[in-house]
Amino acid sequence: MTYCLGMSLDAGLVMVSDSRTNAGVDHVASFQKMRIWENPGERVVILLSAGNLAITQAVAAALEEGVRADPAIAAKRKRKATLLACPGMTTAAQIVGDAVRHVYDRDAERLRQQGSEFTATFLLGGQIKGGPMRLFMIYSAGNFIEAGSDTCFLQIGETKYGKPILDRVITPATSLREALRCALVSFDSTMRSNLSVGPPLDVAVVRADEFKMGWRRRFAENDPYLLDLRRHWGEGVKRLFMDLPDPEMIL
Amino acid sequence: MTYCLGMSLDAGLVMVSDSRTNAGVDHVASFQKMRIWENPGERVVILLSAGNLAITQAVAAALEEGVRADPAIAAKRKRKATLLACPGMTTAAQIVGDAVRHVYDRDAERLRQQGSEFTATFLLGGQIKGGPMRLFMIYSAGNFIEAGSDTCFLQIGETKYGKPILDRVITPATSLREALRCALVSFDSTMRSNLSVGPPLDVAVVRADEFKMGWRRRFAENDPYLLDLRRHWGEGVKRLFMDLPDPEMIL
Repeated sequence: MTYCLGMSLDAGLVMVSDSRTNAGVDHVASFQKMRIWENPGERVVILLSAGNLAITQAVAAALEEGVRADPAIAAKRKRKATLLACPGMTTAAQIVGDAVRHVYDRDAERLRQQGSEFTATFLLGGQIKGGPMRLFMIYSAGNFIEAGSDTCFLQIGETKYGKPILDRVITPATSLREALRCALVSFDSTMRSNLSVGPPLDVAVVRADEFKMGWRRRFAENDPYLLDLRRHWGEGVKRLFMDLPDPEMIL
Repeated sequence: MTYCLGMSLDAGLVMVSDSRTNAGVDHVASFQKMRIWENPGERVVILLSAGNLAITQAVAAALEEGVRADPAIAAKRKRKATLLACPGMTTAAQIVGDAVRHVYDRDAERLRQQGSEFTATFLLGGQIKGGPMRLFMIYSAGNFIEAGSDTCFLQIGETKYGKPILDRVITPATSLREALRCALVSFDSTMRSNLSVGPPLDVAVVRADEFKMGWRRRFAENDPYLLDLRRHWGEGVKRLFMDLPDPEMIL
């Protein structure tokens, strides 16, 4: 599995992905799941991926090469489209969807013959000059949904372990610093409870209306800050338990 | 869905279940998923159930009536066995497994004809005089696993949202009070993040070597203690975030 998280806040975007890939316990490896297209001052587009690694890498390769639109649904687009040249974020999401459909048409039947499903989901966040910051989730069917003010974060992969802490803390008004800390706690909780999600963690933070990468960092397993955060959080949670009220039980 | 949790600690057992049952959003109802067999001073046996409600109720009915052992695997047992008369907890787990197999033999093929799977899992905890306190998880195949000192809690149903907090706090040495608070926070987190788990919550606490129910309580949605716990926890978590260290990001 994988865990990827995107948050679309008033102040900007926070995107985080893990790096664990496994196909059975004997094939555990580390692959980056974050890809960035940037023309500083004009656009920054970040893609996170979950699912079958061969599929997500094929989609990324198609995106690098440029994607021809699905002829059935978008005959207007003549030239191959890329995330570095598209006019806006909605078009960017369509391009990723077209790339997914391109790989589906090529590989899905062969996967089915081997008993494998075509599984791939993506988070696409970014901002292109002239438009607002956007965050999308793109499904394996190539269609997509967008985050909004009611649901300002989106998750893919192993999403459940890390969701309660996000539900408690994250609103559109949350600052980028607090959102990043919350994201890292969400990943820490997930990694403690599930072996299929693992470091290093890739983090990208983008401030609204800057159209460039704001802060980018890879946290290794023994990163001193991550260890410090984990210790503070773990001890704090235990202290918090000690202070919780007791029910009137007689034990 | 459902969420049920059992903890086997040095000090005793903590068992908690929710009450939400749904078959599509139009059929949301409330059913107790905790059943207790008690002969105070001699035995207390607690069963929690998750899965298809018709199956789990049929299993409970079979248990009330007494279960004939699967003839293929346990020809020795002549009379119908019950949880109130069996000699020990391992036999109790086998009886629940036999009841599951009995219902499977009767209903599974008909369910398959309707496109439904045979899904039912159970947590069985308790102590019978002459033996130690035990906690089992019984699968829909009728086989089972037991909690041990490395893994002292077991969950069934919608387990992921509430697992990180248990992983952080629960060890065999955790007191019953602290374990109960942690269990209720685990349920609160799950109910916030997932609509298919809902109140009232049924709680049973058994002290080791008392062979009787120690403390039993049903928490309704607006139970003042639950609301108080939720508020304390929610505010505490937010305070904790404020105090967490910041990475050296420049934003």
